[in-house]
Amino acid sequence: MIHLSLIGIGTGNPDHVTLAAVRALNEADLILLPRKGDAKSDLVDLRRLLCETLLSDDSGARVVEFDLPRRSADGDYLGAVGDWHAAIARVWESLITGHLPEGGRVGMLIWGDPSLYDSSLRIAGRLDRAGRNVDVEVVPGITSLQVLTAEHRIPLNALAEPVQITTGRRLRERGWPEGAASVAVMLDSGGAFEALSPDGLHIWWGAYLGMDKQCLIEGPLSEAGPMIQARRAALREQHGWIMDIYLIARQPLL
Amino acid sequence: MIHLSLIGIGTGNPDHVTLAAVRALNEADLILLPRKGDAKSDLVDLRRLLCETLLSDDSGARVVEFDLPRRSADGDYLGAVGDWHAAIARVWESLITGHLPEGGRVGMLIWGDPSLYDSSLRIAGRLDRAGRNVDVEVVPGITSLQVLTAEHRIPLNALAEPVQITTGRRLRERGWPEGAASVAVMLDSGGAFEALSPDGLHIWWGAYLGMDKQCLIEGPLSEAGPMIQARRAALREQHGWIMDIYLIARQPLL
Ligand SMILES: C[S@@+](CC[C@H](N)C(=O)[O-])C[C@H]1O[C@@H](n2cnc3c(N)ncnc32)[C@H](O)[C@@H]1O
Ligand SMILES: C[S@@+](CC[C@H](N)C(=O)[O-])C[C@H]1O[C@@H](n2cnc3c(N)ncnc32)[C@H](O)[C@@H]1O
Repeated sequence: MIHLSLIGIGTGNPDHVTLAAVRALNEADLILLPRKGDAKSDLVDLRRLLCETLLSDDSGARVVEFDLPRRSADGDYLGAVGDWHAAIARVWESLITGHLPEGGRVGMLIWGDPSLYDSSLRIAGRLDRAGRNVDVEVVPGITSLQVLTAEHRIPLNALAEPVQITTGRRLRERGWPEGAASVAVMLDSGGAFEALSPDGLHIWWGAYLGMDKQCLIEGPLSEAGPMIQARRAALREQHGWIMDIYLIARQPLL
Repeated sequence: MIHLSLIGIGTGNPDHVTLAAVRALNEADLILLPRKGDAKSDLVDLRRLLCETLLSDDSGARVVEFDLPRRSADGDYLGAVGDWHAAIARVWESLITGHLPEGGRVGMLIWGDPSLYDSSLRIAGRLDRAGRNVDVEVVPGITSLQVLTAEHRIPLNALAEPVQITTGRRLRERGWPEGAASVAVMLDSGGAFEALSPDGLHIWWGAYLGMDKQCLIEGPLSEAGPMIQARRAALREQHGWIMDIYLIARQPLL
């Protein structure tokens, strides 16, 4: 019997971790800590630091780092993602079987919250289907979107209005989502907001949220858009990687 | 000088509170705890319990409960809400001035996260405009939507797809939001999903999330919808109040 906790850890600021997450980490027998390639080694360091900070001396948790398989760039997107998830599930399987042959509690550190543009639940589902008896638990964590709104001191939604959460790709393809008064954009490889006509739109942008190098820009999209593009390129150059997120509204949020 | 922390406290489970929220509570000179009328006295009890559990003995925080003014049911919705926010701001003002005439740190307990269908930032903005020197900080908290997805062990979004967060009222008025593969509904006074044609839709519903009386229902909307309606009415009858939230998807989430 394997108990698998998908533990939302927020975006790198240990203060944003919940008491339930601290407990789940400490109760684990095995903590799996994914490495994501050299460019984002900052993120691996943050995860390591988080474990060091939050694991108490009498926790029996063993922290094991592993390399994530690479996603194939060939073929159709969904097919490639499916293969990738299957490959990750195999890595989890072999680590769990190797380190916990008799079963036990596994903790996976999940960036932000496991519900938001994260596939660990999909991967865990593949473990299950591989015939193992796996009991999955989700421990919610603070999302990057919540750190964005907290740092800018804005709500996500205009008063009593809908908000859409989408990806840079979808924003580019489809433009402003019909019916939403505000739209939050994640997973943007850069400047998808340029697909929108900026008139009357306001943007709140943040990069490296919750980290020392956090950077915020806010303003009418017509003015802030080009500033964000320039700053994003410079930061990416400087640090070798970037993660950013933004909220755009077409009516006042406050 | 007043430092005002809007502290997201999750939905009543003390384990969902973050370390930053615990610290902000303990560092406050004054904690304002809103009462919301008799029916939801459970929620006041939960807030009290949270303060008792999370405040350490050497915290100097004084907890002060206050009655929220009532919202007028007359006139247009936005006008009534504006008046109501102004009235709440006046209550905050007088409590803060009364208890902290020399200034200090104020903590407000905010249900879930301050970004999501919550007006404390709007109310705090009115304090500012009343000429006081108020420094506002937001401490993110776990939302009811995250507890919903965690308890059902589902993501919020279908793979790489947009998700819309909306209200019961808007869902009724507008139907399925164009372009979204899933839709989360809050502030529903009951069964707004009946406005949708249920074919191919799946629903995950939760009431009293994070509390002892938490209740979950999940299934194809055509079957689960009527079950939810019946259960909701019974629970509301039993407890005198209900808070519920749901996610509907038109394609698989996992
Ligand atoms: C694969 S998704 C994971 C999101 C995560 N589960 C969460 O709850 O925030 C990665 C995207 O989240 C956003 N993101 C995550 N961490 C961030 C951070 N620290 N600063 C800015 N954006 C971040 C970016 O839009 C990034 O492209
Ligand atoms: C005024 S909004 C506040 C939301 C809050 N700021 C949050 O982050 O969850 C209230 C709505 O949130 C949802 N909600 C809040 N707490 C809940 C709970 N414990 N269980 C189910 N739904 C809840 C319901 O849809 C309710 O109508």
